[in-house]
Amino acid sequence: MSRFMSDRYQGLRAYTPGEQPTDQKYIKLNTNESPFPPSEGVVRAINEAEVKNLRLYPDPDCGKLREGLADLVGFEKENIFVSNGSDDILNFSFMAFCDGERCGAAFPEISYGFYKVYADLYGVDAKMIPLAKDFSIRAADYHNVGRTVVIANPNAPTGLVLTVDEIEEIVRSNPDHVVVIDEAYVDFGAKSCVELVHRYENLLVVRTFSKSYSLAGGRLGFAVGSASLIDDLNKIKYSTNPYNINRLTMLAGIAAVAENEYYMNNCRVIEENRAYATNALRELGFEVLDSKANFIFAQSDEIDGESLYLELKRRGILVRHFTTEQIKNFNRITVGTMDEMKALINVTGEILAQKRKERN
Amino acid sequence: MSRFMSDRYQGLRAYTPGEQPTDQKYIKLNTNESPFPPSEGVVRAINEAEVKNLRLYPDPDCGKLREGLADLVGFEKENIFVSNGSDDILNFSFMAFCDGERCGAAFPEISYGFYKVYADLYGVDAKMIPLAKDFSIRAADYHNVGRTVVIANPNAPTGLVLTVDEIEEIVRSNPDHVVVIDEAYVDFGAKSCVELVHRYENLLVVRTFSKSYSLAGGRLGFAVGSASLIDDLNKIKYSTNPYNINRLTMLAGIAAVAENEYYMNNCRVIEENRAYATNALRELGFEVLDSKANFIFAQSDEIDGESLYLELKRRGILVRHFTTEQIKNFNRITVGTMDEMKALINVTGEILAQKRKERN
Repeated sequence: MSRFMSDRYQGLRAYTPGEQPTDQKYIKLNTNESPFPPSEGVVRAINEAEVKNLRLYPDPDCGKLREGLADLVGFEKENIFVSNGSDDILNFSFMAFCDGERCGAAFPEISYGFYKVYADLYGVDAKMIPLAKDFSIRAADYHNVGRTVVIANPNAPTGLVLTVDEIEEIVRSNPDHVVVIDEAYVDFGAKSCVELVHRYENLLVVRTFSKSYSLAGGRLGFAVGSASLIDDLNKIKYSTNPYNINRLTMLAGIAAVAENEYYMNNCRVIEENRAYATNALRELGFEVLDSKANFIFAQSDEIDGESLYLELKRRGILVRHFTTEQIKNFNRITVGTMDEMKALINVTGEILAQKRKERN
Repeated sequence: MSRFMSDRYQGLRAYTPGEQPTDQKYIKLNTNESPFPPSEGVVRAINEAEVKNLRLYPDPDCGKLREGLADLVGFEKENIFVSNGSDDILNFSFMAFCDGERCGAAFPEISYGFYKVYADLYGVDAKMIPLAKDFSIRAADYHNVGRTVVIANPNAPTGLVLTVDEIEEIVRSNPDHVVVIDEAYVDFGAKSCVELVHRYENLLVVRTFSKSYSLAGGRLGFAVGSASLIDDLNKIKYSTNPYNINRLTMLAGIAAVAENEYYMNNCRVIEENRAYATNALRELGFEVLDSKANFIFAQSDEIDGESLYLELKRRGILVRHFTTEQIKNFNRITVGTMDEMKALINVTGEILAQKRKERN
């Protein structure tokens, strides 16, 4: 930190993105990307004429994209906010809705690591609520919590879900605070709570194009909420960076929404591959949580989490390992193609066999 | 504003981007875009294979782009920060370097309107220093000012410049505060102060690809500063939205830097067209400031600023009019192609002739 930086950021620890080593080619199962390319319409939309149009600013209102998304989720344009990835929207939400002294925030102790970073960044008092012993979120812990609530559903890195009824009770019991439901992984078999937005003005549902829509590199997220919450987010956006979605990403998003079926079919394939990998890892003796996301979270008694991560990496497979005490024996493994899952299972089997040999 | 939003944003007035009406085709001289498309290399870089790679996250370190920019400006990668447009960098600078109580900010009263928005957003005490009567910035007003200084050079919307010596004295006399020089328009005939970064750890020079590099729609800005200032900005970026530059924009930036000559030649054409339009407007009786930017700032005694803006718009030419008292008789006119400048002059001449006829 330079001597010029505001003291308020003295203790701030930034988020650590997943590694992107370039020393060799890896099977990349560490950042929950889609193994499928964007749809044909996206490829057609980003053409030479549109690249030449990059000389012009994008539409800051993102009108056409917001209209497409509104149709997709059954709301009006005024209920849709779009921004530079869902991280951007979460950032704005902590900025707008978590006034440090007035309310603070509550979120699971084990969840997307960025929530704590945002809380620290804006001096928001963060109540980090432990998970149950089985790593599930106990919905009752969030009833009448009197703070802005942020919950990833499915949760990361566990992949476990709350039901829409459980979320509704959290939203209903905190009428004076915003409840942010981060549905980054909802398309892989969980049920979205977006319909609740029709009835609760304090619910903000955040989504991303990075996972199910194969656009992690495009940077596009959206949120669904009451018109007044969306207005608030737009006020922050127009006070920081109004043109934060570039022209080509805007076109990609519009094309992707129009080809929703392609992406939902891909999600079904991911669910099949997840079932395969889950079963195969269980057969290898792993505990694998019941994930509804495009990743699985698994641990073995035979090898500690960090060793497995390192052994996999040495053999060309990247997974994500977290050093947080409660989950340090686990690895989060992105669900990729069936070939990738088979490679994962084979290599993991080899690693375990090697371990057993060493022990004998 | 919803009842959930932090009280601190109660009085906040967001930035108003230039209008983008779609009711007819306009000659668009209102947002300082380049009339030239991005270079061939940019078009080649954004190809089908790379669109398919959008499924993968971008490199958050932006290594190759930062290295290219470092070579371009004669610094090291660690001296280069890149982000989602220069607005993003200015936003981070107000966040990081203007700790409300500790220092506050100073910037010209007439300048890029976003500076005031950022100050308000972060509760930064803003000292807005009036311009001289001829609309120039008086450098001496910023000596020993004891605040974070933000100056656009060339200034917007005047187009007037400070010399590198004048900027150096501002930087030298405020050793305990960051001086941000916003060089969005520097490539159109002004002299950059970037070389001063070699000697002053408190200088941050902010640039954009939106104007001279024909990439307004790509959203790419960069800053040059001491390694510790760049670290600070990266800390904010990694605490808000680490992947904020999408893959295609990253490729576009790398390709554009490699074809720097194309863009600098375009800037020379803009300078020629600016000279033509300046002279022609002066011949029509306008006062035109001596702009070194890709826009000119002009007023006439024969027609008030708002009327001219409206009359031009009615005839298919968009320019930017500001309602701020001191400059409300002016319009800011982007310098486009020679054909566009000729159309502007012809139509302006017609409007003035009509006015004269009405008066008689």
